Amino acid sequence: MPNQNPDLHGNVPDKAGAALLLIDVLNDLEFEGGDRLLESALSMARALARLKRRARAVGLPVVYVNDNFGKWRSDFRQQLDHCLHDDVRGRPVVELLVPDDEDYFVLKPKNSGFYHTTLPLLLEYLEVHTVILTGIATDNCVLYTASDAYMRDLRLLVPEDCAAAIDPGRHEAALEQMRATLKVDTTPSGDLDLDALARVPREGVEQSVR
Amino acid sequence: MPNQNPDLHGNVPDKAGAALLLIDVLNDLEFEGGDRLLESALSMARALARLKRRARAVGLPVVYVNDNFGKWRSDFRQQLDHCLHDDVRGRPVVELLVPDDEDYFVLKPKNSGFYHTTLPLLLEYLEVHTVILTGIATDNCVLYTASDAYMRDLRLLVPEDCAAAIDPGRHEAALEQMRATLKVDTTPSGDLDLDALARVPREGVEQSVR
Amino acid sequence: MPNQNPDLHGNVPDKAGAALLLIDVLNDLEFEGGDRLLESALSMARALARLKRRARAVGLPVVYVNDNFGKWRSDFRQQLDHCLHDDVRGRPVVELLVPDDEDYFVLKPKNSGFYHTTLPLLLEYLEVHTVILTGIATDNCVLYTASDAYMRDLRLLVPEDCAAAIDPGRHEAALEQMRATLKVDTTPSGDLDLDALARVPREGVEQSVR
Amino acid sequence: MPNQNPDLHGNVPDKAGAALLLIDVLNDLEFEGGDRLLESALSMARALARLKRRARAVGLPVVYVNDNFGKWRSDFRQQLDHCLHDDVRGRPVVELLVPDDEDYFVLKPKNSGFYHTTLPLLLEYLEVHTVILTGIATDNCVLYTASDAYMRDLRLLVPEDCAAAIDPGRHEAALEQMRATLKVDTTPSGDLDLDALARVPREGVEQSVR
Repeated sequence: MPNQNPDLHGNVPDKAGAALLLIDVLNDLEFEGGDRLLESALSMARALARLKRRARAVGLPVVYVNDNFGKWRSDFRQQLDHCLHDDVRGRPVVELLVPDDEDYFVLKPKNSGFYHTTLPLLLEYLEVHTVILTGIATDNCVLYTASDAYMRDLRLLVPEDCAAAIDPGRHEAALEQMRATLKVDTTPSGDLDLDALARVPREGVEQSVR
Repeated sequence: MPNQNPDLHGNVPDKAGAALLLIDVLNDLEFEGGDRLLESALSMARALARLKRRARAVGLPVVYVNDNFGKWRSDFRQQLDHCLHDDVRGRPVVELLVPDDEDYFVLKPKNSGFYHTTLPLLLEYLEVHTVILTGIATDNCVLYTASDAYMRDLRLLVPEDCAAAIDPGRHEAALEQMRATLKVDTTPSGDLDLDALARVPREGVEQSVR
Repeated sequence: MPNQNPDLHGNVPDKAGAALLLIDVLNDLEFEGGDRLLESALSMARALARLKRRARAVGLPVVYVNDNFGKWRSDFRQQLDHCLHDDVRGRPVVELLVPDDEDYFVLKPKNSGFYHTTLPLLLEYLEVHTVILTGIATDNCVLYTASDAYMRDLRLLVPEDCAAAIDPGRHEAALEQMRATLKVDTTPSGDLDLDALARVPREGVEQSVR
Repeated sequence: MPNQNPDLHGNVPDKAGAALLLIDVLNDLEFEGGDRLLESALSMARALARLKRRARAVGLPVVYVNDNFGKWRSDFRQQLDHCLHDDVRGRPVVELLVPDDEDYFVLKPKNSGFYHTTLPLLLEYLEVHTVILTGIATDNCVLYTASDAYMRDLRLLVPEDCAAAIDPGRHEAALEQMRATLKVDTTPSGDLDLDALARVPREGVEQSVR
């Protein structure tokens, strides 16, 4: 019944050229290697919190794309509560990146944020041509989400200070992999001109990187 | 990071041959024609509440597949609160079908429950071969979800008393459409042998209808 | 290697607002009920052949979306040869609808033309906003392809004389199902203004039906 | 019409635990960097031709998954003719890997062999649990097809001598990326026990690598 009208545009106010995606940042880091990841994840979280504030200020939609860690019945509020209130390794990371009411949330069951999720449809309704992809881990869910975004002809930015991996070498290798095969721009977040990204059409997006 | 192990089986305890799907029953019925739908939706809700209790009793997983009615940021708890606590037409229907903690929930953005949702993956992990499809409306989201289930080689039951449409003639026409092209069994819910459905492998499912 | 450039636009010359889709018309009709289908399929083929000529004349791309009838290794040329040169029931239908070199071809493994095929991507690259859906059978592959097209926000025309089903009653019921739930326009092919369809943007498409 | 029976199993004779996939090997290599790829592609083609003969001998299905290089109307026979009969750089590679009549063929429009293609359905009907992934280029279509296969819970072998990339360093980096995040086994083709692969169920597949 609800879908007799396919035009959902009126309900999606945040039309914007670009969107900020945060991959698996609501994360307790309670897995093998999580201890080695903590330091770079914290550094990432600080840069990402700043980038998110700037994105919000210029009207870019913010989308949390998060694993449910195998708990099919849970929603992201439970995941958020767990990360904030249980004594977990990832708590300081999550405290820096608590979602705002205006943010979107997509539950992903596998590595790529596009696989069996509403993300493709959400980005289409937002009329996004560029995705700023951030989060954990650079060489896994970030890379494989980037691959799916590229196949959908989205332009990709992965600011090198806004993603993290267990091993610094693998972080660098994944950035290089994305630059070489997915045309990813890895300019650090501080050098991105978000005003330009919010404004420019697809053709002019190159000018948005100083 | 979270998905380095693709084997989520351990986290999905409800292995079962069949699952009960409730389509768009968390519904305020506040749309054109909703008044004409109310009576048949209430009748449906009473039969469906009984069927759901019996499904739970024999261990069949119950999955709510519900529209977000264009509100991309909302989750099903908000939708449930709205239907139960605001003065909406659908409240008596929803009161009969409040989800239990053990139930699964899938947010669907369009008519079919399979389109850009986690449902295909959830059913795969549950190892379901048969779907009992119920809800609103017979000639729209129920029919188009049935079509997608059929293409995935799932066996389909749509108990005729557990679905509703605005117009009784269109309810009947949709049931006939499903019987004729999707091999749907429309046996009323009271005549279904759920014990058999919970037990039998794909080959023997015919015997589960008395 | 081949896909390092996602921009295939240059290779898809037929930009057009609308496309003509022919569902399962390369069909030997050698199945149960095929004899009862033959007469209406022949009538359909004559109207469809005229519509296809007119579509070609105004530059609308023509896409054959055809079943492989379970033969995963075959291609459409083999299917075409079989229908034209073996002594099959569907031969006179296929003779009226032989593909031209400029036509596109999509192999579909299941009922809907969108399920696990390249069709969604092809229509996207053609920048189509309207689909003229035709073929066999109205109440099966045509209906379920229409449902998938509707979920992708495509505008739908199913000229009532350019589709066929085994049973005339089911043909009518499927047309009514599509009008009622998928906003399908079933104006007969002779009354369609293809010039307008080829020209107008999405918003103005209503005016293209006289 | 054709799909009223979803059970295509009878038409897919090659039930097998594993399948051999050849990614973009029908390739004219007429792109920037193709000259530097030629030598490693030839070496790959020799090893792959041997592996294919062994796969055929033990009954493993062979699937060519190939780009159409932006030519939406072409089929693989045209692509094959072009590579074999025009004076193109890739000819000696393709001559070593000409498809047999029994081989399957999937046209892919983008990097991953799973994206908008029939491959997921074909592998499902073949009841494959393991994929031997080979072809061009290791760090692009092979890697991104591997990612999609992993999300579908397929076990992956990428024999290191049966894939090629423009740059040897990127070939190695991609193999390491797959081992680290997708549990890919990169044992050279000569050390694979194909008899065991053809025989063993999912659980026992480890034993098939000597």
